[in-house]
Amino acid sequence: MIPPIEVTPDVVPFTAVEHTPAAVDFADRHIGPRGEETARMLTAVGYDSLDALVDAAVPASIRSERPLDLPAARSEEEVLADLRAIAGRNRVMTQMIGQGYSDTITPAVIRRNVLESPAWYTAYTPYQPEISQGRLEALLNFQTMVTDLTGLDIANASLLDEATAVAEAVALMWRAQKNKDGTVVLDSELFGQSLAVTVGRAEAIGLPVVVADLTDGLPEVDGPLLGVVVQQVGASGVVRDLAPAIAQAKERGALVTVAADLLALTLLTSPGELGADVSVGSAQRFGVPLFAGGPHAAFMAVRNGLERMLPGRLVGVSVDVDGARAYRLALQTREQHIRREKATSNICTAQALLAVVASMYAVYHGPAGLRAIAERVHNRAEAIATVLRATGVTVTHDRFFDTVQAHVPGQARAVVEAAARGDINLWAPDDDHVQVACDERTSDQHVMAVALAFADAGATRVGPDEVGVEAVEATTLRAASGTPTTALPADVRRTSTYLTHPVFHLHRSETAMLRYLRRLSDKDLALDRTMIPLGSCTMKLNATVEMEPISWPGFASIHPYAPADQTTGYAELVAELQEWLAEITGYAAVSVQPNGGSQGEFAGLLAIHAYHAARHQDGDPARDICLIPASAHGTNAASAALAGMRVVVVATAGDGSVDLDDLRAKLDQHGPQVAAIMITYPSTHGVYEEGVRTVCDLVHEAGGQVYIDGANLNALVGLARPGEIGGDVSHLNLHKTFCIPHGGGGPGVGPVAVAAHLAEYLPGDPTPGSLPGDPTPGATRNAVAPVSAAPYGSAGILPISWAYVALMGAEGLRTATETAVLAANYLAARLGDHYPVLYTGPNGLVAHECILDLRDITKRTGVTAEDVAKRLMDYGFHAPTLSFPVAGTLMVEPTESEDLAELDRFVDALLAIRAEIDAVEAGTWTVEDSPLRHAPHTAASVTSDAWDHPYGRELAAFPVPGLRAGKYWPPVRRIDGARGDRNLICSCPPVEAYAE
Amino acid sequence: MIPPIEVTPDVVPFTAVEHTPAAVDFADRHIGPRGEETARMLTAVGYDSLDALVDAAVPASIRSERPLDLPAARSEEEVLADLRAIAGRNRVMTQMIGQGYSDTITPAVIRRNVLESPAWYTAYTPYQPEISQGRLEALLNFQTMVTDLTGLDIANASLLDEATAVAEAVALMWRAQKNKDGTVVLDSELFGQSLAVTVGRAEAIGLPVVVADLTDGLPEVDGPLLGVVVQQVGASGVVRDLAPAIAQAKERGALVTVAADLLALTLLTSPGELGADVSVGSAQRFGVPLFAGGPHAAFMAVRNGLERMLPGRLVGVSVDVDGARAYRLALQTREQHIRREKATSNICTAQALLAVVASMYAVYHGPAGLRAIAERVHNRAEAIATVLRATGVTVTHDRFFDTVQAHVPGQARAVVEAAARGDINLWAPDDDHVQVACDERTSDQHVMAVALAFADAGATRVGPDEVGVEAVEATTLRAASGTPTTALPADVRRTSTYLTHPVFHLHRSETAMLRYLRRLSDKDLALDRTMIPLGSCTMKLNATVEMEPISWPGFASIHPYAPADQTTGYAELVAELQEWLAEITGYAAVSVQPNGGSQGEFAGLLAIHAYHAARHQDGDPARDICLIPASAHGTNAASAALAGMRVVVVATAGDGSVDLDDLRAKLDQHGPQVAAIMITYPSTHGVYEEGVRTVCDLVHEAGGQVYIDGANLNALVGLARPGEIGGDVSHLNLHKTFCIPHGGGGPGVGPVAVAAHLAEYLPGDPTPGSLPGDPTPGATRNAVAPVSAAPYGSAGILPISWAYVALMGAEGLRTATETAVLAANYLAARLGDHYPVLYTGPNGLVAHECILDLRDITKRTGVTAEDVAKRLMDYGFHAPTLSFPVAGTLMVEPTESEDLAELDRFVDALLAIRAEIDAVEAGTWTVEDSPLRHAPHTAASVTSDAWDHPYGRELAAFPVPGLRAGKYWPPVRRIDGARGDRNLICSCPPVEAYAE
Repeated sequence: MIPPIEVTPDVVPFTAVEHTPAAVDFADRHIGPRGEETARMLTAVGYDSLDALVDAAVPASIRSERPLDLPAARSEEEVLADLRAIAGRNRVMTQMIGQGYSDTITPAVIRRNVLESPAWYTAYTPYQPEISQGRLEALLNFQTMVTDLTGLDIANASLLDEATAVAEAVALMWRAQKNKDGTVVLDSELFGQSLAVTVGRAEAIGLPVVVADLTDGLPEVDGPLLGVVVQQVGASGVVRDLAPAIAQAKERGALVTVAADLLALTLLTSPGELGADVSVGSAQRFGVPLFAGGPHAAFMAVRNGLERMLPGRLVGVSVDVDGARAYRLALQTREQHIRREKATSNICTAQALLAVVASMYAVYHGPAGLRAIAERVHNRAEAIATVLRATGVTVTHDRFFDTVQAHVPGQARAVVEAAARGDINLWAPDDDHVQVACDERTSDQHVMAVALAFADAGATRVGPDEVGVEAVEATTLRAASGTPTTALPADVRRTSTYLTHPVFHLHRSETAMLRYLRRLSDKDLALDRTMIPLGSCTMKLNATVEMEPISWPGFASIHPYAPADQTTGYAELVAELQEWLAEITGYAAVSVQPNGGSQGEFAGLLAIHAYHAARHQDGDPARDICLIPASAHGTNAASAALAGMRVVVVATAGDGSVDLDDLRAKLDQHGPQVAAIMITYPSTHGVYEEGVRTVCDLVHEAGGQVYIDGANLNALVGLARPGEIGGDVSHLNLHKTFCIPHGGGGPGVGPVAVAAHLAEYLPGDPTPGSLPGDPTPGATRNAVAPVSAAPYGSAGILPISWAYVALMGAEGLRTATETAVLAANYLAARLGDHYPVLYTGPNGLVAHECILDLRDITKRTGVTAEDVAKRLMDYGFHAPTLSFPVAGTLMVEPTESEDLAELDRFVDALLAIRAEIDAVEAGTWTVEDSPLRHAPHTAASVTSDAWDHPYGRELAAFPVPGLRAGKYWPPVRRIDGARGDRNLICSCPPVEAYAE
Repeated sequence: MIPPIEVTPDVVPFTAVEHTPAAVDFADRHIGPRGEETARMLTAVGYDSLDALVDAAVPASIRSERPLDLPAARSEEEVLADLRAIAGRNRVMTQMIGQGYSDTITPAVIRRNVLESPAWYTAYTPYQPEISQGRLEALLNFQTMVTDLTGLDIANASLLDEATAVAEAVALMWRAQKNKDGTVVLDSELFGQSLAVTVGRAEAIGLPVVVADLTDGLPEVDGPLLGVVVQQVGASGVVRDLAPAIAQAKERGALVTVAADLLALTLLTSPGELGADVSVGSAQRFGVPLFAGGPHAAFMAVRNGLERMLPGRLVGVSVDVDGARAYRLALQTREQHIRREKATSNICTAQALLAVVASMYAVYHGPAGLRAIAERVHNRAEAIATVLRATGVTVTHDRFFDTVQAHVPGQARAVVEAAARGDINLWAPDDDHVQVACDERTSDQHVMAVALAFADAGATRVGPDEVGVEAVEATTLRAASGTPTTALPADVRRTSTYLTHPVFHLHRSETAMLRYLRRLSDKDLALDRTMIPLGSCTMKLNATVEMEPISWPGFASIHPYAPADQTTGYAELVAELQEWLAEITGYAAVSVQPNGGSQGEFAGLLAIHAYHAARHQDGDPARDICLIPASAHGTNAASAALAGMRVVVVATAGDGSVDLDDLRAKLDQHGPQVAAIMITYPSTHGVYEEGVRTVCDLVHEAGGQVYIDGANLNALVGLARPGEIGGDVSHLNLHKTFCIPHGGGGPGVGPVAVAAHLAEYLPGDPTPGSLPGDPTPGATRNAVAPVSAAPYGSAGILPISWAYVALMGAEGLRTATETAVLAANYLAARLGDHYPVLYTGPNGLVAHECILDLRDITKRTGVTAEDVAKRLMDYGFHAPTLSFPVAGTLMVEPTESEDLAELDRFVDALLAIRAEIDAVEAGTWTVEDSPLRHAPHTAASVTSDAWDHPYGRELAAFPVPGLRAGKYWPPVRRIDGARGDRNLICSCPPVEAYAE
């Protein structure tokens, strides 16, 4: 028998034992090519190691001397465990804060089959409509839902959040008015974050805004009244009769925007019927989790006549060449990438995935279901008002929808704290008021718990147990009958119908809903079926382990304005992610607040603007010119315009780089006025330019700041840092380099990174004034205005990028970059003889993407880049980027995640297509009657009993043998875009149309 | 200012406030038809209410007088919250118990895209191979993996668990030996549960078995030695050289089965190379969660010559009519539904979904990855042995793979308890030994924590901190080099290769894996795309909310032999579910242990057998005859044979009911020997028979017991109870009536329900003897042997059925049954004029399914039921049940979950097909060259440049317009089954075959 001995646990040298490496590193799962494959690719490119290739491709002048300093790569299991621990440090509460964010029930069938389905979340923006009919239909449902509920004529396919939507509405009204020298009035009942963002945006372009209490009508303003924004269900919960204020505004020539709540609109007279020109709001409470602020789909609808001024994307109905109904993005000429510096919106990314979720929520519940939910929510609010009044608490407003404001002089903090002890978050706009916002999850138990919290804090005269429970019961039990209540009487009640289209009536059982979702997603090509070789879009793996945590309650069920002590998990995750991104980019500070690349750009330019403004006060010249190369992404110019800058274009040299002579000339001409230059590195031409440091130096010498667009950061991570090359600011696209999926056109996340001297000008906190902060709505406590409604922007998806960095570690990230460069050069090497590669950099190498030049082929044969793009669909591929940045070309970015088999499948397809082009050139077929021009071919077209083309059906459908193992069939043929724009239809076609 | 008052929380009358109904009841999501749809269906059937229809269809004599007494229906959110609470009462530990269950890491891409994907889990058994090529390929991968690793020639597509697999192996060896009067020897190193189940099965058929320590060779036995089962990695962790024992067995004419561990087989000489005839084991540790015991896929492989005796399903390679390679189930004549009472296995359901997960784990890791995992596991075990020895603990075995047994006289309990305080479960087979089993998750921290637990319990001489940590480090740091170790020296090390097929080398990146999974599932038709109108299979909604919880760690990460105080959540869930099922069926007690319907039947018959045996001791006659109607499911007879009963067939009357005259005659003839009758109610003919009570009474009068097969329980729930009709025993199919998905051919769950007098004969506990229980392996502590390896069988999926009952409540369940009956009668009414309905019951009504009789059509036109079944695939439907229970017919069961639109789509398809049959009859086409006989049509076949059929391509592919909105394309044409059986290929074809 061994004698027992004493052991103290903490003396055991755990740390002395080394960590056993995982059998497979995550980087090996994320990166496609491996071992032998990488070697073969290097051979094709002509190098014998990744290092040698990278040394040859990337100019030494930009290479970073310091390797990435990041935590060691963790295994998938470790990252899941770490994220579980972080999520556990966010406290899941019953969220009754409101202020634009309501808890909701995501129907499980939608959660699993949309939000958690790779077929939906890995899809790209539907610029290629033939392979995007499923998500386009879903977005058309969204637009129909919004137009129906708002009572307006046309709605876009979503905006980033309600606050930016209000700002966009103000810009739209300003744009629509002939005389622009006037003022916009903002309702003081607008959510605080909407005021903060909108005032900041208006200030940047010098548009005067006045925040006013509209209860007794519109205020007087200097000069003409351009527009008015009112909020139908006020920040204080009040529901006012808006008709008098709107009439008054119309009389004074103003346009009117109504910020509305979609759920309330099932009960309240619609903005359209009230006379509004515009309506905006958030679709979050239609089944989209709180996500600590985002991503959520905001919406904007307008009356006829304003549709061409709508920001963002718009889905429209058209037909394909066979006359079949087909969906597509309409009026793309409105988009920022066309308008550039004339744009007044820089919105690019939408919130497609979340708009799909919200639309499916409406499809699943239908109009009667939504109304029943709204009645229940209202009923719970009534019950709370009843019990509060009965216990002696003063309820501020007689009319409300879901939010009850109580007057509790000096006791607000105590009530909020008492409620928190019962796991309920309430909202105190000041020391004397507490608000209780009800939602779909609010139960009778919550009603009583809230009453108890008031009593517990000493804010009641009698306890809830002592009041006539019968009164409460009577309210609680009132059937969801749609009968007007005292709180929502007949004069504000809606009488018009909505969601009458069959799609909102057909999918009521879970089985039917499941099949509808599957049917739609089957129409689309996403990363779960094929490489998406989109230049500048970096369609890499969105790993499951990165995606899974976003559905966890510890991340999904947090209110953006929850007290800081409940969200330490988020704070830690955001701080770490910001720190890692700063390390990767070589900047001093990062803000994750911008919830799209466009917002990141705007925030970066605001920082530059504020920096110059501060120096101007110290005697520096006033600087407001932003230099932008001709090849830049259109958003750059639009963002500069929004930040109040004037755009001056710098020429592009023949090799695609910035024309240094022209730059010098422009600096000579505008020197003291130059605020910044915006460049992209590697350039949008997919090349590592040698001269970038010179560009930066010249601008700096002229006193300007350098903005380096992070769109192509996937070519730099681990090799170079924008902040070391000469950048003062960059924005990143987490949905490109850092694995947030594109979601069929959003969400995007665009953090802004700045050098130390700009750190104080990062976006401010949008959180509305609350105890003990600033109670003045619209006031911001920061030097610079916020750019999003929530402090961390789209916080709910930040775990994805956090997980990516944690999983990859420094070495994995660098290898990913190197492999991305190898893959692009492999494609260039294999395709270059057949499709000229337009631009190359050092040693004839490209960066992480390459441009295939079709212009000569087009000239000789008539076969266009578009023909090739569409024909690729017949081969089962998503098209590369078409005609950007150079018309008549295709830009291809394979990313590091595609393995050699897939790269070769793509090469084989393009070579087979090249042979088809040769056949056209040889006169075998005319281009007009070739498989290229007729592409894509639907199953219906190739099985048609009639076939009178000079090429066979098999060539049309199965041009390479591999397709027989499983072919994707485009659901429509090539779509007539112009016809769709001429006959604009942006909601679901009427039933008769289905009989066609 | 309101004066504060004191309020005590518990005086608030929460309960006085009534529960607010959810906006939408789950039953409304589960049940397809609603409101107007139900009314239209009733009109078509000729009734004006569901009640009237049910009164007319269901004989009053069987109707239950007492409504279901179940908890009120809960909302989806409530059920998720309740299950979260239940899961929270299961304690998630580091599970180092072993004994056949090892923790594992399910790769997230497989979890999300197989285990959590409706496309995989809602699929049916691949009896219709043309629409099942994806899952057939996955199962072929599984078979290839098993044959490669076991070194044998042919493997089946999975069995229920390792214990039943051992029992099946014993039965196989017995079956394969000419002289059956001999003995089988079982290794005492077999897992306790394998011994318990196998001994029970052998006893039932009167086969003598001997449990013996084989360390020093085989024991002497009476008479011939039929077979030997040895376990390669013993229950005590020991790895012995098995060659001598196997040689000895062969010399004595015995067959040899080796129970093996798939992961260990990457390092150990394979059973085939050791000379084994059979190998069995579990594939659980290949990525399948512990699930508290199941579901997991077990495997069985045999040498050539034994393949026709393999139980279960076998996937084979054949070709379609165009000569394309195609997969199908091979050698179906072996199956129980053909062999009936001659069967020696009643296995019907396999564990397809889990076999797919395990196969994909191998596909993802490949041979090198698997070997690296095995080396790491072994390395951790070595580290534990090293540190234990260094601290003065005796390690029992020098040779081991993953499990280290320590000798700690009298201290086993203390060590286990010390480890549990550190959240680690160890295993003590008796008071003096503790075992530590390592797995893929075992880290260095675990190694040290285990050592600490031994020290903490006083079982070490020196503390881990005092021993030479260098020794531990040296072991820990030994690279996974494949170098033989002392614990696994060269003489047991494997030298042969495995998993050389390309499929185990192609899908290494997550992107590639994701696409492979999508590509396979796209080939198949599952419930997420279409109704699966399979008679007797009840393919209803598998709701997302029912499915989600099974992935939660609180359910998925529990070891089946974890101490009871860690699994109170499971205990509660199982107790409630058993209680609810008892209430629904009208029985006194239920056991959820049987993990397939076949096992439920076997358990029920064992109960009857034990009951009669007990009465026989009191003087009753010896009863061993089981009466089975001719129309019964084949499993019935097979189960009776396995329970040691003789089968006597009772004739079926012309209307499909039991022939009462023949029953009386059989009872007269066999009266005192009759043990039981097995009937199905409603009968397999889909009719509520009037005479069922008479059948029960006659058998009871003769002293027999009545077994009512619960296959058709979906026609009874809420209307009638088998236990009230006259049943003494039933088994249920939770994967039919209670929403567990079919998973492409498993898992199934088949609880057994019994009347009070049989309750004591429910299956015993298979948990191996552990402290403080019975340490004798193979001994069971119960009157009746267990039928599964785990006490709750497939515990991990029981939350699905629990959720279904909780969500539906009594009323919802009854409405579901009524709607299922309505739907079947609606189809019968609409189709009856075109396809005669073979059997009807009271008032010309059917029950929940109906049989369409094609025989006259076949006689007149040559068009067979199979032609119609295959042609339905062209219309996008899964075929109904073909030629069961009557050859030349189709049995259709729509279930309650299909809405009217889908039912009508099905009717439209069958009517269109009827018109095609008419065209054959009219001579428009010959049957041989008709779209019916050529069905299904692949995309390749209809786009072929050559087309010489008398019907058009459009008719072939798009016979009804609705298909143009989204067509499913079968990947192969009709498959030549006979050719596949003649040229049996049951693993992945060699690479050259792919070049075809």
